[in-house]
Amino acid sequence: MAVGSGNLPGFFPVAGVRVGVVSAGIKTPGRKDLVVFELAPGARVAGIFTTNQFCAAPVVLSRRHLATSAPRYLLINTGNANAGTGARGMADAERCCAELATLAGVQVSEVLPFSTGVIGEPLPVDKIVKALPAALADVSEDRWAEAAAGIMTTDTRPKGASRQIVLDGHKVSISGISKGAGMIRPNMATMLGFIATDARIAPELLQALSARLGEKSFNRITIDSDTSTNDACMLMATGRYGGPEITADSPWLPALEQALWEVYLELAHAIVRDGEGATKFVTIDVRGAASQQEALDVAYTVAHSPLVKTALYASDPNWGRILAAVGRAGVAGLDLEALEIYLGDVCLVRAGGRADDYTEARGQAVMDQEEITIAIDLKRGDVQETVWTCDFSHDYVTINAEYRT
Amino acid sequence: MAVGSGNLPGFFPVAGVRVGVVSAGIKTPGRKDLVVFELAPGARVAGIFTTNQFCAAPVVLSRRHLATSAPRYLLINTGNANAGTGARGMADAERCCAELATLAGVQVSEVLPFSTGVIGEPLPVDKIVKALPAALADVSEDRWAEAAAGIMTTDTRPKGASRQIVLDGHKVSISGISKGAGMIRPNMATMLGFIATDARIAPELLQALSARLGEKSFNRITIDSDTSTNDACMLMATGRYGGPEITADSPWLPALEQALWEVYLELAHAIVRDGEGATKFVTIDVRGAASQQEALDVAYTVAHSPLVKTALYASDPNWGRILAAVGRAGVAGLDLEALEIYLGDVCLVRAGGRADDYTEARGQAVMDQEEITIAIDLKRGDVQETVWTCDFSHDYVTINAEYRT
Repeated sequence: MAVGSGNLPGFFPVAGVRVGVVSAGIKTPGRKDLVVFELAPGARVAGIFTTNQFCAAPVVLSRRHLATSAPRYLLINTGNANAGTGARGMADAERCCAELATLAGVQVSEVLPFSTGVIGEPLPVDKIVKALPAALADVSEDRWAEAAAGIMTTDTRPKGASRQIVLDGHKVSISGISKGAGMIRPNMATMLGFIATDARIAPELLQALSARLGEKSFNRITIDSDTSTNDACMLMATGRYGGPEITADSPWLPALEQALWEVYLELAHAIVRDGEGATKFVTIDVRGAASQQEALDVAYTVAHSPLVKTALYASDPNWGRILAAVGRAGVAGLDLEALEIYLGDVCLVRAGGRADDYTEARGQAVMDQEEITIAIDLKRGDVQETVWTCDFSHDYVTINAEYRT
Repeated sequence: MAVGSGNLPGFFPVAGVRVGVVSAGIKTPGRKDLVVFELAPGARVAGIFTTNQFCAAPVVLSRRHLATSAPRYLLINTGNANAGTGARGMADAERCCAELATLAGVQVSEVLPFSTGVIGEPLPVDKIVKALPAALADVSEDRWAEAAAGIMTTDTRPKGASRQIVLDGHKVSISGISKGAGMIRPNMATMLGFIATDARIAPELLQALSARLGEKSFNRITIDSDTSTNDACMLMATGRYGGPEITADSPWLPALEQALWEVYLELAHAIVRDGEGATKFVTIDVRGAASQQEALDVAYTVAHSPLVKTALYASDPNWGRILAAVGRAGVAGLDLEALEIYLGDVCLVRAGGRADDYTEARGQAVMDQEEITIAIDLKRGDVQETVWTCDFSHDYVTINAEYRT
């Protein structure tokens, strides 16, 4: 089950980025489960990582390598998260990087490892190492679609986005892929994202873009409130586009950031649309908040409420459950008489109770749609925040009660 | 679906408490849906209420009446929560109290109203008022079992607990009933509890007992993290037992508090055992915490994780999901090397990864049981907290996707 068509777009090749996709037989024989990104010399990389304190070995190692070197390779496997694996997990991740570095003739610290899949099983290092030569031999500029499929776990479909713009007369390409369908919650859940552009971007700006674009896209989606141990979203800029370096005060930055933003948002939304068991794509829009924190508290409380999520699944305009979730979000001194709640363009709650002009038929008409916006105006200030989520269905339980069997 | 046998116990009558149970036809014709508690003059009452800011009209009114008068009647209806009903809801609750007060010859402020059921529908006041004479005519000391059934909503079975002890040569009876199966979360979820004793308890002690017994029982259970608009747990002491008044420094207090505690805990656990769709009764025991807040943060993060709850439903010892939930609980500076996680008496996690002596067979043996304890030792201090919850099943989704239809 998933929301919308989910067709993979055409990908613009990104100069300086080549991708290899092969099968290492990590979990399922024959499945393409190993992806290698090769970056041309001079490429710059920034990223954001999971906030889970039990972060996986590859996350620890990627952070460490990124702090010391300019990456030349990203090595991504699905089928095994190499998380909760203690000292052995670190040794395993290090060996994968070392073997790839030797084969490619780069430093070990120029390789960033990423893993996704089951937690707590030892990484099958020998299988991965054995597949590395084929992966390196496979790299080309037009393997983005295969890479999108190669990083999937419980995803039902590959996820990608791509844009091309012109800056100062030079074409800039942006392509990205993402994965994730469960254990998705703000601050990097079981989510991987890889976005590359051939623009030349100043290092400090690249870091800032990675942080602020990730914050308002991947860090604003939630499927089941569970934050994974492994997540990462990497922004790569090869600088091969031929134009000038983009800095924070460059006149070209707004257009570039807009195009990057569209790719980030499309990739993040694709994860929600493919949420485990999802039948609805839901936007929670909180405005009139006095602070960002209270806006997010309200948005996530509604987005995580099992009662709201099951009502969305049932297409039931059960506005009492939304009201109850807002009321328990921990925002002190809510003005219940002023606050308003909307389902689509239908006002549900006004003056402390059901809006006078609300009818079940109007609420039902919105609920019957596949894409639904719940808007909550707290009438306390001018801060606005948006979070995206999906509903909670029988299939979510089936998928997660049977994942390991 | 529910965990355990759930047989209703025999109830000891409580001198000075009479209960009437009748049908007002509020939602389902013929269903007994209206309960009246009548307290003898001189009875004392204390209570705790929902923390949801959208608290329902009857909660507002019960708090107000309790602040000014000694209650003589509690009026409880199921089928309609009278929540999210604005000014009309307050007027409706007031009218029910006023009509009962007139019939019984007491002040309106001596009546406490309680409602549970669907949010946002107008309370059918006329039906309730019409049934009041029959409810008053029905009161007797031995209607506790009928009252337990009369306050149910989506509960699959009535919930009660009763004890009798001897203090200073005088028999003390304690009887209580509770309801609730969904929208259950700490700080009074869709939960009602009524506990009465014929002990004579000093007013300030009664208030303190109500707070501390409720805090560690009803406020430590969670089914789906949703806190309702209507919840209340009332402790009534009629003082008819013939013995001395119990005060904070009375030698009889420990025995009385222990018996009350057993009734509170049994009633709270009964709600979890009857959790919507529940197939497992789960104790989350966090110890070695540096503060109560972090102990509760960890316990509730695990208790609310949909991935942990679906694994429990599947009897799947998927310890990686428990580890991931602990890691995202927001406790800064967790010592991952020291921390230990147990499933029953089987150590899952030690030294930052899966415990050396863990085997799938040992984990499975615990998971196959109907009552499961997850113990997490943070190794940071000596604070301990316990939370009770249930698993997350297909039936939960079915129940909540079809509740209003």
